[in-house]
Amino acid sequence: MARFKLTIEYDGGPFQGWQRQDHAETVQGAMEAAATRLNGSPVTVYGSGRTDSGVHGLAQIAHADFDKPLRADQVRDALNYHLKNHPISVLAAEAVDDEFHARFDATERQYLYRIVDRRARLALDRGRVWRVPVKLDVDAMHDAAQVLIGQHDFTTFRDGQCQAKSPVKTLDEITVLRAGHEIHLHYRARSFLHKQVRSFTGSLVEVGLGKWDAEDMQAALEAKQRTECGPVAPPDGLYLVKVVY
Amino acid sequence: MARFKLTIEYDGGPFQGWQRQDHAETVQGAMEAAATRLNGSPVTVYGSGRTDSGVHGLAQIAHADFDKPLRADQVRDALNYHLKNHPISVLAAEAVDDEFHARFDATERQYLYRIVDRRARLALDRGRVWRVPVKLDVDAMHDAAQVLIGQHDFTTFRDGQCQAKSPVKTLDEITVLRAGHEIHLHYRARSFLHKQVRSFTGSLVEVGLGKWDAEDMQAALEAKQRTECGPVAPPDGLYLVKVVY
Repeated sequence: MARFKLTIEYDGGPFQGWQRQDHAETVQGAMEAAATRLNGSPVTVYGSGRTDSGVHGLAQIAHADFDKPLRADQVRDALNYHLKNHPISVLAAEAVDDEFHARFDATERQYLYRIVDRRARLALDRGRVWRVPVKLDVDAMHDAAQVLIGQHDFTTFRDGQCQAKSPVKTLDEITVLRAGHEIHLHYRARSFLHKQVRSFTGSLVEVGLGKWDAEDMQAALEAKQRTECGPVAPPDGLYLVKVVY
Repeated sequence: MARFKLTIEYDGGPFQGWQRQDHAETVQGAMEAAATRLNGSPVTVYGSGRTDSGVHGLAQIAHADFDKPLRADQVRDALNYHLKNHPISVLAAEAVDDEFHARFDATERQYLYRIVDRRARLALDRGRVWRVPVKLDVDAMHDAAQVLIGQHDFTTFRDGQCQAKSPVKTLDEITVLRAGHEIHLHYRARSFLHKQVRSFTGSLVEVGLGKWDAEDMQAALEAKQRTECGPVAPPDGLYLVKVVY
């Protein structure tokens, strides 16, 4: 048996998220079908975490075990061959020891959320960014975001369906900045709750619109009530950028 | 009559280029259909220049005349409404005097060519960048590109079908650099010949692959023979970025 660490890019648009489901196309499902073809018998592909329906991966990390001896470049190329009908690409495969676990060994996750604040429809980046039709105050968004940094009970900012045992997490970074014609929100933490990044982003857009200020963000955090969250941002603009081990 | 300057974004993928054709979907054709609906009688939309089939526009400039009095924001929003089934977006409309001409008044065009040099297939940017499956020497590409700067007879680098009277053009800038996981080629000139940017890019990739050096580029330029051009780069990675007036 040989374990490989896989770095995976995918367009979340056509998938019902990462996690395998019986009657829906998922990224894990497509990866496992490809790995099983390569291996000749069933293979489980363990991701660093789930991404929701429509959320993209730039460098999702997973691991999988193969029974036959394979070189890392063979694993990458063979998986890509079997994935050729899906918008999924294995960027790299790396042989790792049998103890490596894509989920449990991860020490940090990084997400990017892309917004375009303009009235005109998206011609090129439909499904890839969130278009907000009015100009946003990016400095106010950045300042209000700093309220969220550190260890908090994030009940306000997690989905009602979130299965994490505790709503307490430690957020290491949120940076909000203009990048050309876009607004980028960079998030960094050991781990995130279900829909936490989209809940943060939707609430920060309320700040950018002038409806909320930093004190409202503080109050929403302290309320520890899901009903105090701003509108949840759509998945289109969200990218899992990096997983650190 | 009121003339408007239009700034247009489009995904070139589904179109047979900018220029109107009788039996093919083109960007100009779609723009004119929308403008004609808004105006109530036929409108011609004059672009700053043609883009080829598959080439994208980030800020193509055009002008059009409308018979009825309209505010600039009405023009933008109404055109976008009529364009809703096309990947075309009017980013801005601006009232200009009757002398303004999108093509003849332009003093500079800027193009971007995006390359990703990696073996793995594109999951997210299919049709948006050119994937070259091996690593390219970007510094060598940049250095060789400088041979092309200035006024030259660019016969080698223009399409056999190019309708420009003279093959002599003045190229102001080519910058080749790494931008994250991509290679960007920035081109700037008063005007370009047919397929000139894609001919340059394809030849520069020969340099990046180590097949050509700066002397080969110089020899190709001096040959003034189309057969001496490298393989023409695909349209996928090419963007009209800016037109200066």
